[in-house]
Amino acid sequence: MPGNETADENTIFVGNKPPMSYVLAVVTQFNGGSDDVSIKARGRAISRAVDTAEIVRNRFVKDAVIKDIIIGTESLTNEEGRSSNVSSIEITLSTN
Amino acid sequence: MPGNETADENTIFVGNKPPMSYVLAVVTQFNGGSDDVSIKARGRAISRAVDTAEIVRNRFVKDAVIKDIIIGTESLTNEEGRSSNVSSIEITLSTN
Repeated sequence: MPGNETADENTIFVGNKPPMSYVLAVVTQFNGGSDDVSIKARGRAISRAVDTAEIVRNRFVKDAVIKDIIIGTESLTNEEGRSSNVSSIEITLSTN
Repeated sequence: MPGNETADENTIFVGNKPPMSYVLAVVTQFNGGSDDVSIKARGRAISRAVDTAEIVRNRFVKDAVIKDIIIGTESLTNEEGRSSNVSSIEITLSTN
């Protein structure tokens, strides 16, 4: 569905790289014409997702506001078939 | 001011202890009659604050909802007088 594709394009997944890698990705999305960009992370990368959002709106896209912040719990299954829970965050920045 | 004292009592600061320490503190606040409890953290402890909120509402206080999530940036000055920025989060859980 076109709607879903658009949503995925506007989502940046934060992992273990330095925060500036993700800042650049978010800024690029905004410069490409996106009004909303979602920053997602799980587990320990959650604090890096918050860093990313804060650096973007304080230094690079000063008209961006925090539209929404959602936290949740995801169930992961490892190679041995055991499941464990991990926290997640989704921060949506908007220039609208 | 009485208003501020009440707010401080209902705030749990998350640091480097295991998440369950903070979960216990939050649950104790709710059991003591608080309707709202704020969970605050800075830097790498942010992901632990999200874990704390998720464990509380999924396992211990099932009628608690996420009332508000605020992220921000705080400026810290180290012993040498140099300042650095650190991200912060405040998650407010409510049973109202």
